[in-house]
Amino acid sequence: MQNKKEINAGILIIGNEVLSGRTQDVNTSTLAIWLNSLGIPVAEVRVIPDDESIIINTVNELRKKYSYVFTTGGIGPTHDDITAESVSKAFNIEYGFHKEAFSILENYYKPGEFNEGRQKMAKMPVSANLILNPSSGAPGFYVENVFCLPGVPSIMKAMLGSLNNLLVGGEPILSETINLRTVESEIAKSLTEVQNNNSEVEIGSYPFFKAGKLGVSIVVRSVDKTKIDKCNSEILKFVKDKEIEIVER
Amino acid sequence: MQNKKEINAGILIIGNEVLSGRTQDVNTSTLAIWLNSLGIPVAEVRVIPDDESIIINTVNELRKKYSYVFTTGGIGPTHDDITAESVSKAFNIEYGFHKEAFSILENYYKPGEFNEGRQKMAKMPVSANLILNPSSGAPGFYVENVFCLPGVPSIMKAMLGSLNNLLVGGEPILSETINLRTVESEIAKSLTEVQNNNSEVEIGSYPFFKAGKLGVSIVVRSVDKTKIDKCNSEILKFVKDKEIEIVER
Repeated sequence: MQNKKEINAGILIIGNEVLSGRTQDVNTSTLAIWLNSLGIPVAEVRVIPDDESIIINTVNELRKKYSYVFTTGGIGPTHDDITAESVSKAFNIEYGFHKEAFSILENYYKPGEFNEGRQKMAKMPVSANLILNPSSGAPGFYVENVFCLPGVPSIMKAMLGSLNNLLVGGEPILSETINLRTVESEIAKSLTEVQNNNSEVEIGSYPFFKAGKLGVSIVVRSVDKTKIDKCNSEILKFVKDKEIEIVER
Repeated sequence: MQNKKEINAGILIIGNEVLSGRTQDVNTSTLAIWLNSLGIPVAEVRVIPDDESIIINTVNELRKKYSYVFTTGGIGPTHDDITAESVSKAFNIEYGFHKEAFSILENYYKPGEFNEGRQKMAKMPVSANLILNPSSGAPGFYVENVFCLPGVPSIMKAMLGSLNNLLVGGEPILSETINLRTVESEIAKSLTEVQNNNSEVEIGSYPFFKAGKLGVSIVVRSVDKTKIDKCNSEILKFVKDKEIEIVER
C-alpha cells in the first residue's frame, strides 16, 4: 500500500522513556489525528532510543520513504537530548547556534536567566527553518521534509498550528463509526462481504468493553463521503437483518 | 548500541486504528515494563498497518535484528485480522487450522456457537506453539522468536504470565527516580557531568507538570544497583548544593 506517489507521513518517537515503558506515548495519536485532517495518512510509527547512530539511520531511512517525517523528543536542554545534533548529522548540516532561535530564546528569558542549558536549545542544524513555540519559547525546527518537535505533549500540540499552511496534503480522510452491541465473530462473515463489495473503503472492526458490556466499533474510512455512505448502508442492512442493537459509546 | 549478542526485543503494533490516531496504544508500555522485569530491554517499537506485505517484511526484518519480537493486534475473527496469515507467510509455514487451538476454542464455546468467525481464530501457522489465553479463550501463538498477541490490552496483559518461564532474559534492568522541583536547564550542566562520570548508567531527564507546578524526574537505569547508588549520590550532592527541593510525584 506504500505508494511513493501518495502523500503520507512517518512518525519517529525518540526516547528511552517510551521504550522502557515509563512514559506512555500520546504524541502519535495527536499527530495522526491532525495529519489525517490535512489529508496526510500516517504510514508508520517508530519508537527508537536516544542513540545517535540509530537516530541518524532512522531519519535517513524514513525521510526517503515518506512525504513527511515528524520526530518528537530529544530537543530539550539536557545531555540526553540529542535529536537536534543527530538530525544535523543525518543531513550533513553544521550543528550550532541558530541565529533566529538564539534571538527568540534570549528575548524569552529574563536577563541573566539565559544560561548554558537554555542556550543548548538554540543549537540545531544552522540552516534549519524554525517551528515557533507559542507555549514555552524554545522552537522546534524542520529541514526539508523532517519536522522536529518536542516530546512534552502539551507543548508539541501547541506547535502544530503553525505548520497547517506549510504541509501539502491530499484529500482529508473521512471516518465514520457504527457501534454495535454484538461480538466480532457474529458479524465477521457479513463484514467481509461488505469489505469485498467496497474495496476502496477501509473497514476496521474493534471490540470494546464499556460498563461491563461487550461491543464492536465498526470504523469506515475513505476520502470519499459517498463511498462511506454506500458502505454504511450495507452494514446497517445486515445489522437490521441480524437484529443487532446500535449503541452509543 | 544494538549489539547482536545482547538480549533485546522489538515490539510490532499492527493496526490501522493506531496509525489513524483513533486508538491510543497502551500495549507498548505493558510489554516494555514486563520485558524489563525479565531483563529484556526493548530496542525498538514499530506501528504498521494491516497490510500483508508490510507485516511480512517487518516481521522478517525484526526477527533477525532482535532476540525476541512481540506483535500485538490482528488475530481476531474479522476480515482486517491478517496477522496470523501474514506471519505464516513470513516463516513460509502453512496457514490453516491449528489442531490444539481448534480444540481449545471448540471446548470454550457452547455447542452451536463455534461459528465461522470464531473458527478463524484457530487458523495460524499450523506448527506454531500456542500462548494460552486465560481471559477469553482464543490463544495467541509463537513461531521461533516471534510472539503474536491480541490487541485488546486487558487480554494481551493476561496472556503474558504464561511466557515468563519461556523467555531467557539478562539481568533485570533496575531503575530509580528522583523528582525535583526545578527546570531542566538549571541542572543540565551538573547532570551532564554526572553522566560523564557514570558512563555505564543511563540517566534520563524528563520535565513534568503536576498541580500547576513544574518539575523534573531524573531516572537512573542500570543492571547494577551499586552503580545506580553511586550515580544517585552524585546527583543528590549537586541537588543539595543548588538548594533544589526533592518532591513526590
